[in-house]
Amino acid sequence: MKQTYEKLMASETVKKAREIMKADEAHTWEQHQELVLIPAFSRHEEKRAKRFAEMLRAEGCEVTVDEVNNVYTVIKGTGDGPAVYMTAHIDTVFPMDTPLAIRKEGDRYYCPGIGDDTAQLAQILTLVRVIRDSGVRFKGDLIIGGNVGEEGLGDLYGVRHFFSKKENADKVDGFITFDGSSSGIVTGGTGSYRYKVSFKGPGGHSYGDFGMPNPIFAMGRAIALFSQMKAPVDKKTTFSVGVVEGGTSVNSIPFACSMLVDMRSESKANLDAEDACFKQIVAKAVEEENARWAADSGLYSDRYSRPGTVPLCERKVEAVIEQLGNRPVGEIQSEESPIVAASIAAFKASGIEPNMRGCSSTDANIPISMGIPAVGMGGGGKGGGAHSSGEWFDPTDITSGLFKNYVLLCGLLGVEGLTEPLLPKRDK
Amino acid sequence: MKQTYEKLMASETVKKAREIMKADEAHTWEQHQELVLIPAFSRHEEKRAKRFAEMLRAEGCEVTVDEVNNVYTVIKGTGDGPAVYMTAHIDTVFPMDTPLAIRKEGDRYYCPGIGDDTAQLAQILTLVRVIRDSGVRFKGDLIIGGNVGEEGLGDLYGVRHFFSKKENADKVDGFITFDGSSSGIVTGGTGSYRYKVSFKGPGGHSYGDFGMPNPIFAMGRAIALFSQMKAPVDKKTTFSVGVVEGGTSVNSIPFACSMLVDMRSESKANLDAEDACFKQIVAKAVEEENARWAADSGLYSDRYSRPGTVPLCERKVEAVIEQLGNRPVGEIQSEESPIVAASIAAFKASGIEPNMRGCSSTDANIPISMGIPAVGMGGGGKGGGAHSSGEWFDPTDITSGLFKNYVLLCGLLGVEGLTEPLLPKRDK
Repeated sequence: MKQTYEKLMASETVKKAREIMKADEAHTWEQHQELVLIPAFSRHEEKRAKRFAEMLRAEGCEVTVDEVNNVYTVIKGTGDGPAVYMTAHIDTVFPMDTPLAIRKEGDRYYCPGIGDDTAQLAQILTLVRVIRDSGVRFKGDLIIGGNVGEEGLGDLYGVRHFFSKKENADKVDGFITFDGSSSGIVTGGTGSYRYKVSFKGPGGHSYGDFGMPNPIFAMGRAIALFSQMKAPVDKKTTFSVGVVEGGTSVNSIPFACSMLVDMRSESKANLDAEDACFKQIVAKAVEEENARWAADSGLYSDRYSRPGTVPLCERKVEAVIEQLGNRPVGEIQSEESPIVAASIAAFKASGIEPNMRGCSSTDANIPISMGIPAVGMGGGGKGGGAHSSGEWFDPTDITSGLFKNYVLLCGLLGVEGLTEPLLPKRDK
Repeated sequence: MKQTYEKLMASETVKKAREIMKADEAHTWEQHQELVLIPAFSRHEEKRAKRFAEMLRAEGCEVTVDEVNNVYTVIKGTGDGPAVYMTAHIDTVFPMDTPLAIRKEGDRYYCPGIGDDTAQLAQILTLVRVIRDSGVRFKGDLIIGGNVGEEGLGDLYGVRHFFSKKENADKVDGFITFDGSSSGIVTGGTGSYRYKVSFKGPGGHSYGDFGMPNPIFAMGRAIALFSQMKAPVDKKTTFSVGVVEGGTSVNSIPFACSMLVDMRSESKANLDAEDACFKQIVAKAVEEENARWAADSGLYSDRYSRPGTVPLCERKVEAVIEQLGNRPVGEIQSEESPIVAASIAAFKASGIEPNMRGCSSTDANIPISMGIPAVGMGGGGKGGGAHSSGEWFDPTDITSGLFKNYVLLCGLLGVEGLTEPLLPKRDK
């Protein structure tokens, strides 16, 4: 592997690529600024995807825009190499009505979404130009573009859709989500399950209908049990209730309330165990709330019921669990695995000390969970404030951060007449 | 007592009063319709109170409008009789921007607030005219008018304010809240305590800050404990959580959440016991939530904390209890107590079978809780749909319902040259 990168770094092709990249910085930054001003909230990426596809076509590429607006081109390899899918996400966390304007302060340019992940989306175009103009010929096929639905309620639907097609899942030997900080390498996918749990009952008057099960009581019981769960500690596993709402007035027994639940883990087994526990808890809480008033019926529930009506204690509460998010766990890949080792070596060969980030929740969750090697990493430039209105980007010397990604592609795919691919083809 | 009412019913004065009342019905209904179109949401009664005061002055009365817009006049008695304060509430449950228009359907007139308590407010003016024009001379003083703040978050502040003045509390021997159905007699006051409980913490990321106490967890623990309380059954006592809210997103540990709590009872001892239990529960829930993460710190709380920062498990949750409502219990008065017995007898003498309502939450809570005899009852006319947008009133034959109230005043206060007061003066 060391030899492979030594050969690459010494080659005229790769040296030329660096020069082209450097000369392209202003162009990259121009396209970056155009793209960031096109709103692209998750599941509303159409307009930005369309413009990105036009930009990719303008580089002479044959472009696919799939059913959900994933955009990509295939740069065919010369022969029997592995296939790599490299993609930056098109969507941002900012709703469509978020005011978008670029404001400069010192070396920093501020705009919602300017870093995450528009910086990398623009640099995909740069890489396409540099690959073309440096004359490099990969052995394996490179699928390269932008994908939808990475953020929040996008729930990874873009990459999920891509890999849901058998021909794609069968073809790809390695995946790079082009996302995150310039020096970081993500090697695993934190999985998450997200739910909305709704508790419902007939509701009534807090005094007149006392003795009737109360949905907020059932939810409180569920939260109390949930808060007492023991999270596994072998691999980080977490749980939270982030939002609660329900009820109409202080003197009404509510007819409905709900809570939003988040569970995450680096381990699929841990996450599934926690998930099973959560579902038991919701059922138990509802059962206990209903049973409590039934058991007390001799005390007051039936005493306060009006004759001829359903006894108050029999007007049951129930819960409905709705899944809002399902990001599969991508168990962390070892530093010896070819895609991770090749990434580390490419960073070092390019003069960047890699920051091993371990698990994170990214588009790489999907392929890793399917057994397809995958990593996550950023490109060039500096940035901060992701997901906040103070998000910023500094495009100074993009090349020093972006060059490593070109080198990694060369390493993984192999270069005709120069190096063999570092990424093995998968058994399919 | 029977003799007293026989004398009254046989007297020319009382017979004349009935004729005057009958002849006044159109006038009563006219003023009723004018008053109901003046918005008077609790704590926003000024405009309606001002108009009501003008109407009272137009009857030749010297009118007091106190600091909070209670409006009343004093009809002086001839001598050493008891003092009665009779009042209808000016406020309604309808916010100031509620569209107010009177719509007729059959014999029913629909308008928000047309029954509760505008009907009785208008009939206060009728009673003043009838007392004046029938020439009746009471032995005791009658304080008669309209008061603010009976409904909802008004929290009885009008009558509470009136009786907070020593000269008023010392003067009044009996109280009538002129409110409710025509045939009902309320003899006790259901007490209630209402609270907003806010749970606060630093908040953070559901995954990154796992191990930090969660305000929603603390609230859930409190609700679960609260839902398990045993309500006393000797006298009806209830508890409920009616509203919960809090949190900003599924993947954040919230920094704040809150719940609205309602507790009611016919017994002060029961209500206070429940209240003490509730406060212990809130403290215990917060303590347990904080203790849980501190105890687990060896497992993950401190493990996930960033070096150099306050450990996650030490970022405590706390609760603040804010009282929104405090309606004192007015323990139910026996049917043998003079004010209740006189009310029952006045109803019967006037041909109305009284419907003993027992406890309710009305302005009478305040005087009863202070040991001042008090009852609640409506006037004339039929109505329904109180507190709803479909509230209606039928003014047909107001006199048949209202006459009893005149008779009761005669009975309680005593009529010069005819009857002795049925209401004793209080030891003060």
